[in-house]
Amino acid sequence: MFQINDNYQKLPGSYLFSTIAKKVAAFSEANPDKSIIRLGIGDVTQPIAPAIIEAMHHAVDEMADAKTFRGYAPDLGYEFLRKAISDHDYKARGCDISADEIFVSDGAKSDSGNIQEIFSTENRIAVCDPVYPVYVDSNVMAGRTGTYDASTGMWSNVIYMPCTRENGFVPEFPKETPDMIYLCFPNNPTGTTITKAQLQEWVDYANKVGAVIFYDGAYEAYISETDVAHSIYECEGAKTCAIELKSFSKNAGFTGVRLGYTVVPKELKCGDVSLHGMWARRHGTKFNGAPYIIQRAGEAVYSEAGKAQLKEQVAYYMKNARTIKSGLKEAGFEVYGGVNAPYIWLKTPDQMTSWEFFDYLLENANVVGTPGSGFGPSGEGYFRLTAFGSYENTVAALERIKTL
Amino acid sequence: MFQINDNYQKLPGSYLFSTIAKKVAAFSEANPDKSIIRLGIGDVTQPIAPAIIEAMHHAVDEMADAKTFRGYAPDLGYEFLRKAISDHDYKARGCDISADEIFVSDGAKSDSGNIQEIFSTENRIAVCDPVYPVYVDSNVMAGRTGTYDASTGMWSNVIYMPCTRENGFVPEFPKETPDMIYLCFPNNPTGTTITKAQLQEWVDYANKVGAVIFYDGAYEAYISETDVAHSIYECEGAKTCAIELKSFSKNAGFTGVRLGYTVVPKELKCGDVSLHGMWARRHGTKFNGAPYIIQRAGEAVYSEAGKAQLKEQVAYYMKNARTIKSGLKEAGFEVYGGVNAPYIWLKTPDQMTSWEFFDYLLENANVVGTPGSGFGPSGEGYFRLTAFGSYENTVAALERIKTL
Repeated sequence: MFQINDNYQKLPGSYLFSTIAKKVAAFSEANPDKSIIRLGIGDVTQPIAPAIIEAMHHAVDEMADAKTFRGYAPDLGYEFLRKAISDHDYKARGCDISADEIFVSDGAKSDSGNIQEIFSTENRIAVCDPVYPVYVDSNVMAGRTGTYDASTGMWSNVIYMPCTRENGFVPEFPKETPDMIYLCFPNNPTGTTITKAQLQEWVDYANKVGAVIFYDGAYEAYISETDVAHSIYECEGAKTCAIELKSFSKNAGFTGVRLGYTVVPKELKCGDVSLHGMWARRHGTKFNGAPYIIQRAGEAVYSEAGKAQLKEQVAYYMKNARTIKSGLKEAGFEVYGGVNAPYIWLKTPDQMTSWEFFDYLLENANVVGTPGSGFGPSGEGYFRLTAFGSYENTVAALERIKTL
Repeated sequence: MFQINDNYQKLPGSYLFSTIAKKVAAFSEANPDKSIIRLGIGDVTQPIAPAIIEAMHHAVDEMADAKTFRGYAPDLGYEFLRKAISDHDYKARGCDISADEIFVSDGAKSDSGNIQEIFSTENRIAVCDPVYPVYVDSNVMAGRTGTYDASTGMWSNVIYMPCTRENGFVPEFPKETPDMIYLCFPNNPTGTTITKAQLQEWVDYANKVGAVIFYDGAYEAYISETDVAHSIYECEGAKTCAIELKSFSKNAGFTGVRLGYTVVPKELKCGDVSLHGMWARRHGTKFNGAPYIIQRAGEAVYSEAGKAQLKEQVAYYMKNARTIKSGLKEAGFEVYGGVNAPYIWLKTPDQMTSWEFFDYLLENANVVGTPGSGFGPSGEGYFRLTAFGSYENTVAALERIKTL
């Protein structure tokens, strides 16, 4: 008789966004005259840039002609895209990452979930708190996290690194030594970041204790300050301890297009074993390459026209971020993030819990955000708003909040 | 210090297609005047059908306009595609599979590799021999297969079900009881299949012993005989024991477009636990939906124009299959498959090993195929040719073989 992977049974319900959806639906039904503005989910709203649209049309036409038709892609990605990534995202910034250290995928969520698979289930993970839920849940499924305590919202075998206003949202080296460290800067959900010097300390720490860092750089395009690293490989020694995960979702609006990549440097080893070889084997066995049309779309991200158009798109969202941040400040809120990231993280007023503030905002301003407690225990008392809405909606939402 | 998943270290090198590529490159360099015809890899060559191209162009245009732009897709697939699959691939054939039992993915290779993850690592797997390597390799990575014996090419904890001319390529119920059974009909690599009555026996067996069947139906569109099931759910009782994996790669030429789906019926349970819920959780955590543009391409597969165009495409490849089969017979070979599948499986002549025949065919006919031994020990002494080339090349290859 077959048995299941009973680690799945340990997972608590994934209620965050479904609870939000239910609450919004109920409010909407009870108040059909109210227009609701959604600044909750981190999904983009601006259309795909013209240079990318053109590249996709061209690739679709290639698929229509036997002479230019493409069948199976190379598992690890087309050379044209891997080289564009290497040149523009790394070599142009002085990072010596070669095309064959880049693994193209269908998105950073898949890679974030799958990367743990090439590591021992005995490894201990460390995560920032609050955190993107995929890091923890994928490790629950693999059996690394121990038991869940519903009263604290914490797993017995996970090392939590609180990121709160008290420590400036900068994780501290944990007391217990982790084997696998998840870092995401600029951060989801807090929208804050750390300096390059602080990141260098993490790289040095990982090399010292023999830990691997999974560095999620999905929001890198939103960095505006000069002392923030665009890639962990700007730090010395990162190639012997870090895997970098990158997405096209937020810099190019690819949430529905699906493309990402992961860098596994050849120098990253466990004893004699190359993690690069292991990830290549995983890709080759359980993945069959991203679609040709989508890889051409990715290539267009790095064209001159694509770069110019995407710079404008990022600027559009960052204008929203400034609108939210300054509006909230005017309204008397304590606000974080929004300078190097499209997320604004606010402290709920009057000791309200995250969910109390959610209800308050929905009922009184008809604005939807995300309760910070949904991202981990240290998110309690905070609330996330995203800059990914339209400018008109963002302005309208803030007008409403200011009159509360 | 982090440790790796050392199951990966047990994997023998994946030499099959790289060895083929190297041998072909060496021959080509030594014989620049010879034109080589490749009938080795199962990759399609015909362009994407016009109805599908049109649907993709339309979807690309939708992504260019804020009013029709789509961000994150539903993790499990768009309703329009899940419904089209349910209606056309299941309900039209009398199989009661609903849209919400269908999980859209980026391809059957991903699903084939990932599906084992929701099961216990203590489960024992059974595979046909020869077999599609992903089934075994993904279980090696998970630690289910025991140790590898290089002299036999077999894993100590895998149940092999030989499929050879002696048993008509029909797997027999194994002596030891498996928990997870991989079946693929019409079969890759042999091109043979079993009848619906024989498949029903497997369903009854699985229900009796409490095993789950992973039914790979990637080649379903090539079925020409009426007593062959197009879906395992045509068999009574399959919904309590079977997961079906389907691909758009071979019926619609999507090898480079990337789309597939997996059916997990709600009735399939382990005790009280629904596997449907587990797979939904896996999808929601480690996958973020197939691209919108590609899902629209999938929908067009089921349009009236799409169906008519793809019927012609399948007929084109099956004409190649008949050409290969009849040509080989004329040349005195013993041949299997090619009636319900785009693969022809031939017995090597004169006690040649699979690799000896590979060399013989390359050197004397300049035709590339795949040695059967690459798919498992029982593939030794066999050789695979595919019908996915162009008709002109297929005819030319057979002309050369006939003159050997």
